[in-house]
Amino acid sequence: METPRSLTVRLADTRARLENDVDAWVATAPTGEGPPGLVPLSFDWDGAELLLATGRDTPAGRNMRDRGFVRLALGELRDVVMVEGPVVEVALDSLPAVRWESYAVRAGWDPRESGPAYAGYVVTPRLVQAWREYPELADRTLMRDGTWLA
Amino acid sequence: METPRSLTVRLADTRARLENDVDAWVATAPTGEGPPGLVPLSFDWDGAELLLATGRDTPAGRNMRDRGFVRLALGELRDVVMVEGPVVEVALDSLPAVRWESYAVRAGWDPRESGPAYAGYVVTPRLVQAWREYPELADRTLMRDGTWLA
Repeated sequence: METPRSLTVRLADTRARLENDVDAWVATAPTGEGPPGLVPLSFDWDGAELLLATGRDTPAGRNMRDRGFVRLALGELRDVVMVEGPVVEVALDSLPAVRWESYAVRAGWDPRESGPAYAGYVVTPRLVQAWREYPELADRTLMRDGTWLA
Repeated sequence: METPRSLTVRLADTRARLENDVDAWVATAPTGEGPPGLVPLSFDWDGAELLLATGRDTPAGRNMRDRGFVRLALGELRDVVMVEGPVVEVALDSLPAVRWESYAVRAGWDPRESGPAYAGYVVTPRLVQAWREYPELADRTLMRDGTWLA
């Protein structure tokens, strides 16, 4: 295991993942009984919000619409970035075209070609954490209540 | 993107991950309001059940105990194994020692050294799916209702 990264390095690594990674694990909870949702989805990041897209009738789509909250994991199992925040479902044509153009370049898929069964999901991070294995757990929080700590 | 794997190959790849991978993404849902849980945890596999361990007071521990159901992802974002099933919390000393010895060899950590704030979580898969990217989505189900399809 490595020496814990400084806050500065951790923030830079985390922003690089937000800016360059393509996919995230998206965890959602149903309103009633039933299993939690977990599925890999491509995302885009404009510096403030994550943009996702999926079918409105998938478990992820339904849970995000009904519960309005999501927890995502970027990165790998031992190099983790966790993002938590409210999520809003938006019709594909309600976002500026430039947002989907940016998404399509990153994801290699333009959701607008998939029709009205699909929607966008805009996540506003409130909590961001990053850690590599146990020694980094103590200082894992990088954003709290929507504010970056540096 | 590759040609879809056959069922036989997909089953072999999936069993290899269950037998050799160390960590899984564990998604859980709270009983009431609040965010879904998502955290990487080490696991062991005895051929029928996955064994996890975590703190009883963590979101994952609480959600698994209270809801009794879990969804896990093994593998990578574009080489996915999803496992869904009921989960039971067990006291660390209620499992045969050989189960924790096997877990400790795989995970590099023996939860019994962490004391009674920790517990074991035994997952019995009911649904297993595996896919690499879009072309494999159609035949992704490998276990349904607890029965392997081959």
